[in-house]
Amino acid sequence: MSTTLPDGSPAHAALPQAPAPVNLRLPGPTPVPEAVAAAGSWPMINHRGPEFAAIVARVTENLRHFFQTAQDVLVFPGSGSAGWEASIVNLFSPGDPVAVISIGNFGERFALVANSFGLNVTKIPFEWGQAADPAVVAEKLRALPGLRGVMVTHNETSTGVTNDLPALTQAIKSAAPEALILVDAVSSLGCIDLPMDALGLDVVFTGSQKGWMCPPGLMMIAFGPRALAATESAKLPRFFWDFNRARKSFAKHQPPYTAPISLWYQLDVALTMMRAEGRENIFARHAAIGEYTRRRVQEIGLTLFADPAHASNTVTAVYAPAGKELKPLLKALREEDRVVFAGGQDHLEGKIFRVGHLGAVQQPDIAAALDALERRLK
Amino acid sequence: MSTTLPDGSPAHAALPQAPAPVNLRLPGPTPVPEAVAAAGSWPMINHRGPEFAAIVARVTENLRHFFQTAQDVLVFPGSGSAGWEASIVNLFSPGDPVAVISIGNFGERFALVANSFGLNVTKIPFEWGQAADPAVVAEKLRALPGLRGVMVTHNETSTGVTNDLPALTQAIKSAAPEALILVDAVSSLGCIDLPMDALGLDVVFTGSQKGWMCPPGLMMIAFGPRALAATESAKLPRFFWDFNRARKSFAKHQPPYTAPISLWYQLDVALTMMRAEGRENIFARHAAIGEYTRRRVQEIGLTLFADPAHASNTVTAVYAPAGKELKPLLKALREEDRVVFAGGQDHLEGKIFRVGHLGAVQQPDIAAALDALERRLK
Repeated sequence: MSTTLPDGSPAHAALPQAPAPVNLRLPGPTPVPEAVAAAGSWPMINHRGPEFAAIVARVTENLRHFFQTAQDVLVFPGSGSAGWEASIVNLFSPGDPVAVISIGNFGERFALVANSFGLNVTKIPFEWGQAADPAVVAEKLRALPGLRGVMVTHNETSTGVTNDLPALTQAIKSAAPEALILVDAVSSLGCIDLPMDALGLDVVFTGSQKGWMCPPGLMMIAFGPRALAATESAKLPRFFWDFNRARKSFAKHQPPYTAPISLWYQLDVALTMMRAEGRENIFARHAAIGEYTRRRVQEIGLTLFADPAHASNTVTAVYAPAGKELKPLLKALREEDRVVFAGGQDHLEGKIFRVGHLGAVQQPDIAAALDALERRLK
Repeated sequence: MSTTLPDGSPAHAALPQAPAPVNLRLPGPTPVPEAVAAAGSWPMINHRGPEFAAIVARVTENLRHFFQTAQDVLVFPGSGSAGWEASIVNLFSPGDPVAVISIGNFGERFALVANSFGLNVTKIPFEWGQAADPAVVAEKLRALPGLRGVMVTHNETSTGVTNDLPALTQAIKSAAPEALILVDAVSSLGCIDLPMDALGLDVVFTGSQKGWMCPPGLMMIAFGPRALAATESAKLPRFFWDFNRARKSFAKHQPPYTAPISLWYQLDVALTMMRAEGRENIFARHAAIGEYTRRRVQEIGLTLFADPAHASNTVTAVYAPAGKELKPLLKALREEDRVVFAGGQDHLEGKIFRVGHLGAVQQPDIAAALDALERRLK
């Protein structure tokens, strides 16, 4: 590749080259559509100027639509992990009692972050592969008076399970009405119905590399009225994640500090495409593809890991084929078939693999990936 | 623009379009060279896979070269503001006494972040437009026994002043030998000589949208041995910015959480171009362009804001033309000439404007911008 150095001279050094495209079947990062990818190369502009203000206004309005909220949705640099930290430091004080409903690795990490910030954390764990049982949650919460918050993972990426959020919300609201409800919707929002205001959720957050058809690098988060009120008394120190500081700035359609401009361009394009497809159509597409994935996996003779009653429409976890080493299988698929599946996490490493089917995904993408898998298993 | 929705149907909705290119003369975001821009559209890969590991290894090694350090340089999502927070939460405990040498708006913000995290902050302020006087700094520091850290801005973006870092470092080391030295090098590193190890600096950080010819969205930070030791006793809570957690992960060439992959692609390309041009050549280019900018500004009949003895080679601050309203002038330049200068910040708003000349900049870029300004002033 020939190019020009900043001093105007030609660069003779070999520049890094674009990776060969693969059928990327991770539960994030996910493939980026051509129009969204192209926006990643657009020229830089002033992040305090009128063009960027127009983008902020449009992105915020479109995010409100997908969060199904009338509240402000803010965009921060970062990944889903930033959502855990940003929600915790804005709402709580050291020692605050909270409960974390954990059904897998990402629930565990939400608890880990809460512990790192000195909250008094009670975990309500469920077996990996199962959804949280609302009745059990209600019972456990009743034994924890004075709770300030309850954290829940909407869609557990490590196990391919979607919690029944309406039922869980009802259970939490009846058992711990004062507790704020914080929802990790990183791998569900934009793909699976999640009506934030209708459910009365206090915090919901997600990441650009999941259902949003964008590269990683942006975390989107909304605070309801009770969460906004809680920021007033929350004592944990904060600056970068300060929701109110950012909110005041974004109210003028300006980021609180230099924003990842090219990633905003891409989110803007992606959200416009998502509005064109339609929110309910997107949910239906994910439901159909989730259903297709689970059927095909079983037709191949493999066993689903998650409780079928709560199987996720964005990621499917599958037991390793009997009598086959998983690692070399995934390697051959990756290197020879250009199909990338995700392995299992934590104690499930080597025991399951996961098929991502969220964002810019169509049935032929899954068919091609599972065809390749089927050929390898024969 | 025609495109395809994720469900395969054509999108009839108008998608957001690329902004028209401008002569972007901000001190960040800065223009992105074509080869770097192109990498922003590359396809997604597994951030835990071998291709990304190779990028991490290459970027880290190249960053070490430009930081002039043998220490680990880590890359986090975020902007320069993230550097203030990441350095503070990793090194200090609430109440720790620190001093912030402030010569402008970004020095003030470093102090603000330190205050937000409960440090006991003493500011050592200097008049805006002046560099910090090492003798004064030494004297003030001697009156502050038990200091845990001294924060200093290498290049103050709001005033176009570069501090004499070798002299300041010597002053700090003699007056407060136990204090860690934290350097905000956001708008200097990669453009102006800053030998981290030779100066014995403890923390140095920068941002991708400055000298690195990339879009905003990445913050790069290095910790020296004393800083690494300080992380062991630092009590401020942390997770996202946890240097040791990230360091352990990057040691395996993996990010601690999903990284902004496309921005990493771009940084990888940009660093390769910078290595091809050569570090000393880049410093010389910035010195020549800084010199050219200051001469041309004066030839136009305008007055430089910064003390000429400490004028920055990355950004030049200029007094508003006598008898001219600055705001309509900058607006006309922006809208009619497609030249974007930065205004003044804080109490300098309306009184100065700033010309960015860092990153992928050549003398004709500055000549064109100042020609347009000159025409407007006639």
